[in-house]
Amino acid sequence: MSNDHIATSFDEDMTRLEAMFLEMGGIVTAQLKAATRALRKEDRALAKEVVKGDKKLNKIEADLNNLAIKILALRQPFAGDLRKVVITLKSAGHLERIGDLTRNMAQRTNTIAKAEADTGPIDTLIRMSEIVQDMIASIMLAYKMRDTELAIKVRALDQNVDTSHNALFREMLTYMMEDLRNISGCMHVMFMAKNIERMGDNVADIAKEIVYMNTGNWPEGKRTKSDKTSKMIIEHDLA
Amino acid sequence: MSNDHIATSFDEDMTRLEAMFLEMGGIVTAQLKAATRALRKEDRALAKEVVKGDKKLNKIEADLNNLAIKILALRQPFAGDLRKVVITLKSAGHLERIGDLTRNMAQRTNTIAKAEADTGPIDTLIRMSEIVQDMIASIMLAYKMRDTELAIKVRALDQNVDTSHNALFREMLTYMMEDLRNISGCMHVMFMAKNIERMGDNVADIAKEIVYMNTGNWPEGKRTKSDKTSKMIIEHDLA
Repeated sequence: MSNDHIATSFDEDMTRLEAMFLEMGGIVTAQLKAATRALRKEDRALAKEVVKGDKKLNKIEADLNNLAIKILALRQPFAGDLRKVVITLKSAGHLERIGDLTRNMAQRTNTIAKAEADTGPIDTLIRMSEIVQDMIASIMLAYKMRDTELAIKVRALDQNVDTSHNALFREMLTYMMEDLRNISGCMHVMFMAKNIERMGDNVADIAKEIVYMNTGNWPEGKRTKSDKTSKMIIEHDLA
Repeated sequence: MSNDHIATSFDEDMTRLEAMFLEMGGIVTAQLKAATRALRKEDRALAKEVVKGDKKLNKIEADLNNLAIKILALRQPFAGDLRKVVITLKSAGHLERIGDLTRNMAQRTNTIAKAEADTGPIDTLIRMSEIVQDMIASIMLAYKMRDTELAIKVRALDQNVDTSHNALFREMLTYMMEDLRNISGCMHVMFMAKNIERMGDNVADIAKEIVYMNTGNWPEGKRTKSDKTSKMIIEHDLA
């Protein structure tokens, strides 16, 4: 009887932990979608909403941390359950960071609108954001379904974000050289692209952690990173 | 007798966990110092060393994760010990991320050397790096000594990094507008500054986690963020 009671509470705690993590994933996706819409429509009010909305995410992460530590202290889970608690806590940190990067992206939307520069290839930025949105949706599914194959697939997808980022970076450098008035606006577009690229990295980290959660082993091999922007130079006489 | 044996092993595991975390802190500091020296001296060989050296950090973090999970599974620590295991695991993730940012900084050093642009205020960049180096040293000490006061002090220091970052960002935008040939080089300096600013954020996160580790409560109040760069525009006719 008393054992039954403890067992039920453990299951309840684990279900609640999972639900909180999935809720964070839902909020992160909604935030990134809203930030992207705000960018496309130069909607400053919506961008402000996104900045405000990030607080909720931080709150849930703090609650999730406390619950995870409570489970570790009172329930002493082992094997798969233990890995699930630890990985959920670690991966929640990545979701929280994606939220921070989204907030920063929204802050720059206002600035770009004010700069009134023709910032050109916002389309590439939106495409990058859409890839990351899909990655987040898939990684939340992989977590929920304990789908290792899917997690590995999502981890590889991050290369597409890097490839778009490379193209955008080069395009923006050229653009800045064409017209000085583009510099401020383009700079902020480049930092936004960097933010989205970092979101992709965070999703890839969650993917790695899910593989460990499911199998007890970290995935083999270093992930292929295709971000080449740190090596790019545009010669001024080619611009 | 058997109990004694278990107790000793637990202490040994905890000591090893702490030693691994402190080793990571030592490597991160050495890496950031080397990356900064490489930048100042345009030393490409040293920058390459830094890029290579990051692998070691990733390896120790993976080992630390495994040890933390082993301790949770086999030793079932509680209260302060439990918080120490969980926070060490979480904070090691921040150190690993500082390592990634340092590697990225070193990659850009080579690019800046190649761009051959007069990138001007490298001094500000170096000052930012030195503040972060001091923050890392202090936060490792706060962890080791379980010094909550010091952790709170370090968390506040991050504002100085943000202030330097704001000044540098503005200066760089103006610089790019003065001469098109500066654009590529300045861009990379700005991304380096952003990297260092993010390192400061990660140290501030560790500080928050140490307060929780020592007291069981997350520090009250949102940290004052002074990074204003996402809102900066330089008018082209003022440049």
